[in-house]
Amino acid sequence: VNDRSKVTKHAGSHWEGVSERAYKDESAHHRGVTRHELMGAADDESALGVIVRYFEVAPGGYSSLERHEHAHAVVVIRGTGTVVLGEQLLAVAPFDCVYVAPNTLHQFQASAAEALGFLCIVDRVRDRPILPSPAELAALASRGVSFKPR
Amino acid sequence: VNDRSKVTKHAGSHWEGVSERAYKDESAHHRGVTRHELMGAADDESALGVIVRYFEVAPGGYSSLERHEHAHAVVVIRGTGTVVLGEQLLAVAPFDCVYVAPNTLHQFQASAAEALGFLCIVDRVRDRPILPSPAELAALASRGVSFKPR
Repeated sequence: VNDRSKVTKHAGSHWEGVSERAYKDESAHHRGVTRHELMGAADDESALGVIVRYFEVAPGGYSSLERHEHAHAVVVIRGTGTVVLGEQLLAVAPFDCVYVAPNTLHQFQASAAEALGFLCIVDRVRDRPILPSPAELAALASRGVSFKPR
Repeated sequence: VNDRSKVTKHAGSHWEGVSERAYKDESAHHRGVTRHELMGAADDESALGVIVRYFEVAPGGYSSLERHEHAHAVVVIRGTGTVVLGEQLLAVAPFDCVYVAPNTLHQFQASAAEALGFLCIVDRVRDRPILPSPAELAALASRGVSFKPR
């Protein structure tokens, strides 16, 4: 059949049939992040055009501070944390939405006390992230934006 | 600035700056459904390619039973209910994912006791839904799939 519609059940801290993956290669630029690809990654879901991923950042952890040409649509579904978004540092909590426009520096940071879990929707075909330059980091620091690692 | 990145805060039962909209025109084909367009609907978010909507179906309510060429990526974030998906009727609960492949008949039904809330991601540019034919409804009924209205 060409009908690949399906329900993927959530059970406890995972989804049935969905593997937990490394967020990225080992790096000093991120800490405590896991990734689940929920929908759109399989060839038989290519009608979707996008991939729906779930990221979970452990307490005190953070994703890479980075930018790219593709946009992100993020919906927080668990925990609390902060987001570096351009030159702002903003608090986020469940069901808050974060639109990351093209080429905006961004980083998701979990609070010290609890994990931060969020859905992140991206195009299936997209450009690779770029890390900020030393000058950009200095500019953020001068504005008091608390990026990590410091 | 061309940086339109933003956080849209969730507060109680709504999102700041996001209007609750009618699901569709008045019709006997659906009941008790509201719609919020969270990300991607604004021109300045067109880099996204998709629109992230939040639908909430009141207790006992249901969306239209319909099909279309574009795919849906759905993540339940509130309540419980059932989904007609092709020729199946499946239970859903928070964080369950529903991938609706092209041309699959589908309907979201809230349980009698609580509202069903879900994110639904679709392409910005997409075809219009088609209602099932009487023959298709008869086929579903003969398989014991409980679609609505009956």
